[in-house]
Amino acid sequence: MTKKKLRIIPLGGCGEVGKNMTVLEYGGEALVIDVGIMFPEGDMPGIDYIIPDFNYLEQKTETVKGIVFTHGHEDHIGAVGHAMDAFDAPIYATPFTRALVEIKLKRARLLDGATLHTIEPGKSFTVGPFKVEPFHVCHSIPDCVGLGINTPVGLVVHTGDYKFDHTPVDGNPPDFAKIAELGKRGVLALLSDSTNADLPGATPSEAVVTEAFDAIFRTAKGRVIVATFASLIARIQQAADIAQRYKRKIAIAGYTMTEYVRIARDMGYLRIPPDQLISLEQADAMDPSKVVIVATGAQGESNAVLGRLAFGRHDDLEVKRGDTVIMSANFIPGNEEKIHGVINRLYQRGANVIYPPIAPVHVSGHAKQEDHKLLINLIRPKFFVPVSGELRHLHQHAGLAAELGIPRDHIAVVENGTVLDFDGQSMTVGERVPGGYVFVDGATVGDVGPAVMRDRAALSRDGFLIVMVNVDQNTGKVLDEPVVISRGFVFMREADELMEQIKQVVYQAMDDECAYAYERGACLESVLSKAIYQMTRRRPMVFSLVNQL
Amino acid sequence: MTKKKLRIIPLGGCGEVGKNMTVLEYGGEALVIDVGIMFPEGDMPGIDYIIPDFNYLEQKTETVKGIVFTHGHEDHIGAVGHAMDAFDAPIYATPFTRALVEIKLKRARLLDGATLHTIEPGKSFTVGPFKVEPFHVCHSIPDCVGLGINTPVGLVVHTGDYKFDHTPVDGNPPDFAKIAELGKRGVLALLSDSTNADLPGATPSEAVVTEAFDAIFRTAKGRVIVATFASLIARIQQAADIAQRYKRKIAIAGYTMTEYVRIARDMGYLRIPPDQLISLEQADAMDPSKVVIVATGAQGESNAVLGRLAFGRHDDLEVKRGDTVIMSANFIPGNEEKIHGVINRLYQRGANVIYPPIAPVHVSGHAKQEDHKLLINLIRPKFFVPVSGELRHLHQHAGLAAELGIPRDHIAVVENGTVLDFDGQSMTVGERVPGGYVFVDGATVGDVGPAVMRDRAALSRDGFLIVMVNVDQNTGKVLDEPVVISRGFVFMREADELMEQIKQVVYQAMDDECAYAYERGACLESVLSKAIYQMTRRRPMVFSLVNQL
Repeated sequence: MTKKKLRIIPLGGCGEVGKNMTVLEYGGEALVIDVGIMFPEGDMPGIDYIIPDFNYLEQKTETVKGIVFTHGHEDHIGAVGHAMDAFDAPIYATPFTRALVEIKLKRARLLDGATLHTIEPGKSFTVGPFKVEPFHVCHSIPDCVGLGINTPVGLVVHTGDYKFDHTPVDGNPPDFAKIAELGKRGVLALLSDSTNADLPGATPSEAVVTEAFDAIFRTAKGRVIVATFASLIARIQQAADIAQRYKRKIAIAGYTMTEYVRIARDMGYLRIPPDQLISLEQADAMDPSKVVIVATGAQGESNAVLGRLAFGRHDDLEVKRGDTVIMSANFIPGNEEKIHGVINRLYQRGANVIYPPIAPVHVSGHAKQEDHKLLINLIRPKFFVPVSGELRHLHQHAGLAAELGIPRDHIAVVENGTVLDFDGQSMTVGERVPGGYVFVDGATVGDVGPAVMRDRAALSRDGFLIVMVNVDQNTGKVLDEPVVISRGFVFMREADELMEQIKQVVYQAMDDECAYAYERGACLESVLSKAIYQMTRRRPMVFSLVNQL
Repeated sequence: MTKKKLRIIPLGGCGEVGKNMTVLEYGGEALVIDVGIMFPEGDMPGIDYIIPDFNYLEQKTETVKGIVFTHGHEDHIGAVGHAMDAFDAPIYATPFTRALVEIKLKRARLLDGATLHTIEPGKSFTVGPFKVEPFHVCHSIPDCVGLGINTPVGLVVHTGDYKFDHTPVDGNPPDFAKIAELGKRGVLALLSDSTNADLPGATPSEAVVTEAFDAIFRTAKGRVIVATFASLIARIQQAADIAQRYKRKIAIAGYTMTEYVRIARDMGYLRIPPDQLISLEQADAMDPSKVVIVATGAQGESNAVLGRLAFGRHDDLEVKRGDTVIMSANFIPGNEEKIHGVINRLYQRGANVIYPPIAPVHVSGHAKQEDHKLLINLIRPKFFVPVSGELRHLHQHAGLAAELGIPRDHIAVVENGTVLDFDGQSMTVGERVPGGYVFVDGATVGDVGPAVMRDRAALSRDGFLIVMVNVDQNTGKVLDEPVVISRGFVFMREADELMEQIKQVVYQAMDDECAYAYERGACLESVLSKAIYQMTRRRPMVFSLVNQL
């Protein structure tokens, strides 16, 4: 990199959904926007979460001048602890985001050593060679900002996650004027949220949900249980407001929900009169028609409140006939089966369950195609880089920008780790630095890779079978009965006959085809695998321990 | 059961999606409607498919007088082989359905012993005490019927899977007149498809897709690849018709697709002029703008054509820059991640991918709420039993029926195996017979249950670790170095240090806390599990083989 160029590298969020992270570099100094985690997909069993690859930045710890957070969702702040381990740098965040970041740092015992700065929309600050102008946007958590970043080669705008909501619950619409003003000043590059870029139309306002809630609360005879995201404070506000309208008290269920509600109330982002808020115990004792419960578990997580209610495993609460459960959330792809399972169980227990699209009880926090068009036309950037989405979203977003007249060669659809260099006039798509998945599994980071994942997948399909056999080291004869250990293959308690057959295969093989084999263990494994497939049409992982005595 | 009552038992499809099966009994004689399979969900690793529980019918083989199929989808005919093993009975099916059933029976070597009757809409036939009147409905495979079943206690209507399409591709709309005529005669019980009963509005006609295809084919510069279900013959017809309109040839890719196209053309359900049909080799050699390829793989299956194209593993074809891929299918919940992965890879290879809702390139084959209301109002049944859906669908469907004035106690939302008895005046919800999941895994049926499934899930999260240690049977001392086998836990090639620590734990435990344990193996497993969790925060399945020598 020459000193004259601005370098932008998406290290997360481009080509995937989640673990957002963008690096801006100029003259050897770097600014990092967001360091999020993503949650594992179905083909990543056992993984706790995935963090960005910090390899590139670890090579240059001294150059990171700051981490700026756009908002407090896990896919934007979740890896802050891992990031601080990799490259210590001051943190910049709005008050609510800062509060959530501090919790994470505290749990990782990193808070004491960290430097945090509170930022505010409309107040610029300087990070290395960059003057950053945060501006208010709407999304699905309080205190979200987009960033105008003045760099020596031009103005860069990063939207963060955003939606255009003219009637948000907190009365604070996006700062259209500021967005237009940035556009007027001339924007070199726009980096914009692509999550919903494949969805036609415009994202409806949160106000739509108020109407839907009102209709449900008005007619519900028993309790109303609202399941949503703990960070969706506006939704909790809606539930509380409409509960008040219909003279219902509100109880909060779930550890994270309780924590977020406490923080949001303390900081003034959530207004629930103290006498309206009751405990779960109080709620359980009250006339059901006077109660609203706001709970976690809208993604079907079996250990969250709604999952425990569905399966009858909650200590303080039980779903009753006549309860109305509102699933006030989108169903994240990959979670549908679990969510549907929870809904079915709730029905089984006598609840009525309302979920989109039965009624519009959720709206997305991300802009759709018509919103994106408006943003691009307000900003009119020279270069356009769709971020925060799978490749299909980035390509759709690029297509929209092209429709609006941005030349195709001024649009960069890139995957994580792709280096983009800007000199003010041109954009160069350069080399690729490490930008893949880093798996966090238990106490360790990065030691579980594709090989382990493949083994886990194989084990989950057909399990394993191990045979231990003691043989005489001189005669090669089997000394005593082989021991078989197996899990995930067949139901062992009812597989006596099969196990007997397997032992016979062992005797036979050790006497016959594997008697003089150079690797008797490997030979036995091969014979066993074939025999087991012939008998069962299954392919468990087969191991042998030939113990020469 | 007294001889005077009609007994209806849903043995599949109620409380789940898939493996549809309904039993009607009167006077000791039974009629079976459909015997389908369902595909495993995410929490059923290794399972090939799931069949209905035939236990109830196996107790009374001599009473099943016939199996009537409503249509040829896997979730309605897939278990025909297993059914014939359980209770041999004559089969009744429309021509296309019969052709597909025959393929299944042939593969299971059961065709020679089977009795098959071809049925036709409008032509009634008798099965035991039942006179069956099949009537034409639309769905997403040719030759679908609903059934009017005259029983000694009254008329029963089973819709099969259906949609109301006034402009279907084959020009053959549902037989509204027959449905209305059955209604006029007075229907005792209506059993109706609930798949989309939670979706507001009416299901659009297949004609919508024609428009969408036309717009895409008209503007596509390169090849058009249409991925859809092999059984969705109408969709293939649309692709062929519009290909012809734009002077493109059509090639068929995929084993099942090729087989279905052959059958459908032979039987006259699909009209493609011979000179329009080309081979994949010919397609590959032609000007891309003159080619349409219809392929399997719209559910993201890695081994179907589209999956192989996405991952560059197809022998005869390669996705090229400029190709347009149409995902002409709904994304079945649970498959989204795989489908999105395939779409992203196709984009990576330079294709443009069009999927719903980018354009309306698919419509559902199932009725939605407004359609269901029309059906119920045409039939006006005395009793209503929603079938073919998860509990949430059945409850939503029941809600619609109640809105239309059917008394709540005349509506039965039941799960598989629930016995419903009808005497012409009343409906009694009775005992529950076995109606759960029977897993088919490899060569065997039913030997994999919840315990094995739990083990597979645990193995997929953290793998396993086995330690074998030889000890002196007299002194109890460890004789030589323990052997460790592990998979799915850590990457073994880079875990030397951890394995060394684990061996030290073994030495220590056998010398110390497990030295005099009654069960030394169990003691060692317990010590090891704890130590491994402390070191790694993971919980592999731990086994020990203490070999007393």
